[in-house]
Amino acid sequence: MFSLHPQLEKDCIELGNFELCRLLLMNDSNYPWFILVPEREDKTELFELDDDDLQLYIKESNFLAQILKHYFYADKINIAALGNVVPQLHIHHIARYENDPGWPAPVWGAHPAIAYTEEQLNKIMDVINKAMQETSAF
Amino acid sequence: MFSLHPQLEKDCIELGNFELCRLLLMNDSNYPWFILVPEREDKTELFELDDDDLQLYIKESNFLAQILKHYFYADKINIAALGNVVPQLHIHHIARYENDPGWPAPVWGAHPAIAYTEEQLNKIMDVINKAMQETSAF
Repeated sequence: MFSLHPQLEKDCIELGNFELCRLLLMNDSNYPWFILVPEREDKTELFELDDDDLQLYIKESNFLAQILKHYFYADKINIAALGNVVPQLHIHHIARYENDPGWPAPVWGAHPAIAYTEEQLNKIMDVINKAMQETSAF
Repeated sequence: MFSLHPQLEKDCIELGNFELCRLLLMNDSNYPWFILVPEREDKTELFELDDDDLQLYIKESNFLAQILKHYFYADKINIAALGNVVPQLHIHHIARYENDPGWPAPVWGAHPAIAYTEEQLNKIMDVINKAMQETSAF
């Protein structure tokens, strides 16, 4: 039985599910910062996914990255599987901008998180929903 | 014509080539820190690779990650495509240890690089060569 790591539950807002991954939004309005969590038990590294799941992950990661590019107008996308603190396999997908608070440094530990307001959150969800409707596949 | 970004050339030691990617070692003995660079011109994001190249990348990334796990005995593997400073698509693969100088923080900007001695470098290359010989595929 898959269950989300409590730290991810605490730090993130759950937006929905792809076929393999749960889609989370880090509750930090400094950056559009999404996390994909493959809903598989006891995985810590990408190479532990079986071939079918790995293919799904790649598809969902590419899909999300292209949303960040084309709907959030990211200057650069940062994708990272770290997991030094939260071992449950989860992959960061962050839209970065040349004028964001941490640029060009990586986001981890750079700036304290600023929680979204309800209005900001609705805006993010509108963009995601629009992208999902318009884009069955890139 | 593919050519390696000058910053990667400056910071890294070239170890060899997989089918798609050039394999680099960051000249920083704080961590076994490898970089895969797909030998394709003008790519900055993983989703820009065509399907065949993406499959090759995944295979090479998994292969390298498993070398880090089984030959470098990593506690955790950090994989990241950032590229905020060096736009040429390159993907970090870092063996992390619970007693390494930066743990559990990400490595970027954490500690000044300490160049390898020739002896240390030979040791790393021996491990890589051993892994390559013993492991046609995991």
